[in-house]
Amino acid sequence: MTGTLTIAGLGPGHAGQVTPEVSAALAVATDVLGYIPYVARVAPRAGLRLHPSDNRVERERAAHALDLAAQGGQVVLVSSGDPGVFAMAAAVFEVLEHGPADWADVPVQVLPGITAMLAAAARAGAPLGHDFCAINLSDNLKPWPLIERRLRLAAQADFAMAFYNPCSRARPQGFARTLAVLRDCCEAQRLVLFARAVSTPEEQLRIVPLAQATPEMADMRTMVIVGSSQTRLFHRPSGPVLYTPRSVPASGVGAGA
Amino acid sequence: MTGTLTIAGLGPGHAGQVTPEVSAALAVATDVLGYIPYVARVAPRAGLRLHPSDNRVERERAAHALDLAAQGGQVVLVSSGDPGVFAMAAAVFEVLEHGPADWADVPVQVLPGITAMLAAAARAGAPLGHDFCAINLSDNLKPWPLIERRLRLAAQADFAMAFYNPCSRARPQGFARTLAVLRDCCEAQRLVLFARAVSTPEEQLRIVPLAQATPEMADMRTMVIVGSSQTRLFHRPSGPVLYTPRSVPASGVGAGA
Repeated sequence: MTGTLTIAGLGPGHAGQVTPEVSAALAVATDVLGYIPYVARVAPRAGLRLHPSDNRVERERAAHALDLAAQGGQVVLVSSGDPGVFAMAAAVFEVLEHGPADWADVPVQVLPGITAMLAAAARAGAPLGHDFCAINLSDNLKPWPLIERRLRLAAQADFAMAFYNPCSRARPQGFARTLAVLRDCCEAQRLVLFARAVSTPEEQLRIVPLAQATPEMADMRTMVIVGSSQTRLFHRPSGPVLYTPRSVPASGVGAGA
Repeated sequence: MTGTLTIAGLGPGHAGQVTPEVSAALAVATDVLGYIPYVARVAPRAGLRLHPSDNRVERERAAHALDLAAQGGQVVLVSSGDPGVFAMAAAVFEVLEHGPADWADVPVQVLPGITAMLAAAARAGAPLGHDFCAINLSDNLKPWPLIERRLRLAAQADFAMAFYNPCSRARPQGFARTLAVLRDCCEAQRLVLFARAVSTPEEQLRIVPLAQATPEMADMRTMVIVGSSQTRLFHRPSGPVLYTPRSVPASGVGAGA
């Protein structure tokens, strides 16, 4: 008997942001795999085996999930946020493309989730309301010169920029390099959002001009969003609002170049 | 009495992709506003007033929603997908920033949703598994030269690209210009996904190399995703899989330039 593999996004943390189709998949799962803190978000129950694993073993985890499904399991591989954004979906297809024949008939589906940048943007206002890009700042999987090149081109394009993985245990000062590049190609007043642990009880938001941004403002749980040249900040009695208007006037062409 | 305004994302269409927090907001709403086909997705009930409105009246709709909330309504403004991505959240903050004093104390919250590019990516595999950008191809709100500039810089950065609004009734041939720019700066074999009406019964996916892409493949309900130079296609018994590997080797630096 062949099982199934579902690659599911749990959203940023709040149970109210887990989609019903993901909850339904978890309710019938025999096996749940994922990075330790994500598997910890799945409630244990009789008949469900939990397989938490450490960071940086994504290919091994993907192969394990496919093996369990080929053996008949109803397997769910969980990611935080959306599994298609810097997460487990690509890892599964990397191993599946060149995998053994007994994986060929395993149905694989991806269930999207609320990704961190959209949850963070929603809490701050609408900084991603106009054209934007998403960059994984980790240089574990790509060389730093490529990251720097993308940052400079994104600034020239005047995209808002959403940064995943601004730093890690292995790269405690990783974000300093990014800030240095941004200071070289964006104006000092460019608005930067640091959104930590969005949708959880530890949530913290901070909005500063680029000139005041420091590497310490980003940790492993922080999503960073840099506005475009058009992004605006205003203050309401309830707090600050950061948003990027939908329109750019003709005079805005070339901004950020 | 002051009411509240909730700007909520309904996801791409499938009820299983509407988050519980959005469903909860709709369950206690007194008024729901939005573009006609999105309001049509909200079930009528006693005590709920539905206010559908046409396209291109986003600022008027936002002001109406704020007025109703200032008068005490529990108001929900609905967008398809995520309200922060080329949708109503930015429109609300545009009018709110310079709005009348009686809007100042209205609590405004944004509830994220599954945005179209992530739903489309999930159905095709994981084409947005590495760095990417999102561009609204409509030139209603920005000049075409800015769109063209962004396309060229995004290709140089070797981002995967997700295109919202590839064409419209007013721009039936809008996507032809985009294809011409892409052909000028990407190789002929670059992979292009046309994902129509994702998550609905009318869903259709088509993956072609750029050389075979034509303007007619995109209509108003189509999300277009162009892979990076690293994006791969392989075939399983169940169908094609499109994905972008998580890693780029050092030799990949400068690809797409």
